[in-house]
Amino acid sequence: MKPTLAFVGVGRMGANMARRLKDQGHVVTAVFDRHAPAARELAAEIGARACATLAEVTAAAEIVFTVVTDDAAQRAVFAAEGDSLLVGAAGKTFVNCATISPAVHVEIETAAARVGAATLEACMASSIPQARAGTLYLMCGGDPAVFERLRPLLAELSDGGKLLRYIGPAGTAGQVKALVNMVMNINTAALAEGLGLGVALGLDPKMLLEVFSQTGANSRVVATDGEDMIARSHDCYFSAAHAAKDSGIAFALGEQLGLDLPLAAATKAQYDRLVALGLGEIDKSGVAELTFPGRKGAGLTR
Amino acid sequence: MKPTLAFVGVGRMGANMARRLKDQGHVVTAVFDRHAPAARELAAEIGARACATLAEVTAAAEIVFTVVTDDAAQRAVFAAEGDSLLVGAAGKTFVNCATISPAVHVEIETAAARVGAATLEACMASSIPQARAGTLYLMCGGDPAVFERLRPLLAELSDGGKLLRYIGPAGTAGQVKALVNMVMNINTAALAEGLGLGVALGLDPKMLLEVFSQTGANSRVVATDGEDMIARSHDCYFSAAHAAKDSGIAFALGEQLGLDLPLAAATKAQYDRLVALGLGEIDKSGVAELTFPGRKGAGLTR
Repeated sequence: MKPTLAFVGVGRMGANMARRLKDQGHVVTAVFDRHAPAARELAAEIGARACATLAEVTAAAEIVFTVVTDDAAQRAVFAAEGDSLLVGAAGKTFVNCATISPAVHVEIETAAARVGAATLEACMASSIPQARAGTLYLMCGGDPAVFERLRPLLAELSDGGKLLRYIGPAGTAGQVKALVNMVMNINTAALAEGLGLGVALGLDPKMLLEVFSQTGANSRVVATDGEDMIARSHDCYFSAAHAAKDSGIAFALGEQLGLDLPLAAATKAQYDRLVALGLGEIDKSGVAELTFPGRKGAGLTR
Repeated sequence: MKPTLAFVGVGRMGANMARRLKDQGHVVTAVFDRHAPAARELAAEIGARACATLAEVTAAAEIVFTVVTDDAAQRAVFAAEGDSLLVGAAGKTFVNCATISPAVHVEIETAAARVGAATLEACMASSIPQARAGTLYLMCGGDPAVFERLRPLLAELSDGGKLLRYIGPAGTAGQVKALVNMVMNINTAALAEGLGLGVALGLDPKMLLEVFSQTGANSRVVATDGEDMIARSHDCYFSAAHAAKDSGIAFALGEQLGLDLPLAAATKAQYDRLVALGLGEIDKSGVAELTFPGRKGAGLTR
């Protein structure tokens, strides 16, 4: 029999993962979100219960996915005292999908082990449409035995397992995710500079995008963000504020290790600048607002 | 009948273009290089004449390719006085393949027109193996009629024309080339930071490279430069000094236009740093020497 599932944090990523697993024949028994209406709405849609406490979530399922926003939120749902997923958690398994500091994954693995629960770090290097389609790139960290036990379930989120990777001990998947996002954010800021300078020179940005895609300038973000930069279509898949946060995680790791990472620093500064302009909630492609002549968010419809 | 061809500047790019066109049944009548032995060697190999003067080159061929190193070299071969390709140039066509400032292409088009010669800017966004194989990405600028006349010839250098693009008036292809290299150099420096930080964290860089290639961090340079960065294999296809020069061209264009391009600036600074360390002649992948822990060129075999 398939294990019962629950979701904590049902923003667009968590909600779409829950929908996908329900489509695949899994039973999602419980959902929880600090924003109660989001939980109630999803619960009604997929036939789950919207729980009032975290302890109820743990009681209601064998495997609990957490898809929360940051270190503080992740620590809060695994609190040592008061309402917590750790209450009555012996024998349960937690799959933690938030992009958080690698050290927090280790903390939570230790805290869960103390009450007899297992955890797996499952970092997602993809976005909302991939969550819904079950084609997430999933990088996992933790006990290899826990990973193997969860493999069939996680395969249903990751194109039959083709996009599923075991990276190493808890925290290592988060490190790799931070590096992926650091490099992606730099490439995004680079594309914004190339297109912005092209437009300033009077070149056709669509022609430039085609040339970039066929030469050494090509990158994944040419395909995912190029048209959006030209059209100023910054509907949010991955927000500028998230990009600032993730570049910050990687940059802080570099600083701790005494590495000089000037590109990561310049990119973090660009995303911090977007946030300071009040544009933190537009998509990361919005970094083009800083490099296309005369933009800086002016006249942007939001 | 096929037009007779000549080459001025027979470094590895120019020489391989000449070899490719000879293989395709063209007659290369003359070659010239400031470094005379390079010209003599290639002349002997392909049955051309190594000319002692530029005027002889113009006299010997209908179409002359120039593949020189920089603005100064390009201006020197088209000098207004003394030995010059412009001597006796009425009716001749010059195809200028160097990566130079866009404004110099315009200058030379004007000077050539004055003596009744045609010019075409043909910027190459590819490297030495592609020159030899006839699979160069060629971006052209100038008079559209000149481009159309040369199309069959240029197609033999650009995969049957599949990689041949007309961009616009003289200078515009060089602008696009500068943008391509600017973005490519940033992506290269970004990859070096991602892999360097990964190694500092104790992660396997080959695993990282695989993950980068499958996620939002992917770029053309992941495939072309990643393994070389890990192995410190910096045989030169595109030198760090060239990268510094090209990033400098784009950055200067941005400054003239009042654009803020912090990533281009940070990347130029990295390549300038490599040159200052005496590493200007290693490949652009050598930027990893600045970001992998403990490298900085130490113990590098050259």
